[in-house]
Amino acid sequence: MAEFVKTKLNRLKRGANRAVYDKETINEILDAGFIAQVGYIYDGYPISIPMAYARKGDKIYLHGSTANRMLRAILESGKTSINVMHLDGLVIARSGLHHSVNYRSATLFGELKEITDDHSKTALLKDIVDHMIEDHWDTLRPMHQKELDRTMVVEFTITSASAKIRAEGVNDEPEDYELPYWAGVIPVKQKLEKPIPDDGYPLTIDIPKHIQHHYNKFK
Amino acid sequence: MAEFVKTKLNRLKRGANRAVYDKETINEILDAGFIAQVGYIYDGYPISIPMAYARKGDKIYLHGSTANRMLRAILESGKTSINVMHLDGLVIARSGLHHSVNYRSATLFGELKEITDDHSKTALLKDIVDHMIEDHWDTLRPMHQKELDRTMVVEFTITSASAKIRAEGVNDEPEDYELPYWAGVIPVKQKLEKPIPDDGYPLTIDIPKHIQHHYNKFK
Repeated sequence: MAEFVKTKLNRLKRGANRAVYDKETINEILDAGFIAQVGYIYDGYPISIPMAYARKGDKIYLHGSTANRMLRAILESGKTSINVMHLDGLVIARSGLHHSVNYRSATLFGELKEITDDHSKTALLKDIVDHMIEDHWDTLRPMHQKELDRTMVVEFTITSASAKIRAEGVNDEPEDYELPYWAGVIPVKQKLEKPIPDDGYPLTIDIPKHIQHHYNKFK
Repeated sequence: MAEFVKTKLNRLKRGANRAVYDKETINEILDAGFIAQVGYIYDGYPISIPMAYARKGDKIYLHGSTANRMLRAILESGKTSINVMHLDGLVIARSGLHHSVNYRSATLFGELKEITDDHSKTALLKDIVDHMIEDHWDTLRPMHQKELDRTMVVEFTITSASAKIRAEGVNDEPEDYELPYWAGVIPVKQKLEKPIPDDGYPLTIDIPKHIQHHYNKFK
């Protein structure tokens, strides 16, 4: 199984038993979400900005306005990292210390490049929209040139990564299992609720199949 | 209404119309979650680590093992920021450009201090656990001294903060409302699923009322 090489940057020190370096598992974490936390340094402070993304192979694609100073800053400095985290459960133990959460968290390091040709930009914006809702882009009004012109697309090539996963039950102290306290896991899921049609449109339009499908998958 | 002063650090440049500086709204965002993204700088890279937290007034409390290098690093450098983000909906527009998400995102800057006296540490660990599940700490096996000794509690006093909120429908180009495309919002919620009792315990224990209450609230 293909793994990221452990370096100073991606090696996990705390909880090394939960560390994952294999690309397939990390890609699964990335594909299960569409909002990433993108880090940058401003005035000496590390700041984390939630952004939509798509993954293709070992590339992550971000987009924003051409006036987006954060994207400009990380393109210039090359200093960023990306975290994608899914909360999967509350772990209720018999002692405070062994309380925990189940989660999947991937942290990526890489190289940044702006994508400037219109054809590639359009294809990548399609990927970002389709990563949010499958098969969606082709059902939309095609993009105007001026819209494309004011949109920046950034390619992040993953060069190093690691993940941390907790996906198990309660781990209490051996002697605590005798105690008469309830313990267990409460699963957490991010779910969709019933789509609300835009009231700005006078006609009644049935919800398209691909959106209904997406809703059914995550409701 | 009390507001954070706008400075170079917390002033939002992109989407200033969605910027929020009032403390009450920011506190509501903080109180609606219990996992924050805590930033630190490692080897020149901004890295974002998901961590549990609690809020009391203008303080955020974090905890970890005394061996936690990330907490040690931010205590030493004073350079961190905290982001708490809730995804509230997918905004499906008639054009790709106007696709968006509804969300609440708060970013905090502040001063860090380690809390070292046992009495305060214990009280704050109670706050962190009770922030995850209300009224929970007092139902647990009391903490052993050696557990307290290997736990670090860090106090982050918020000195500057801002939030960005999108909580509305579709904003399409005026001429696009005539197009026969479905548009609307699909709400997103983080929900709990049925608690799974720990199978490591031989006795059958009813789920306590406060945990059932927490589950009912978020199921």
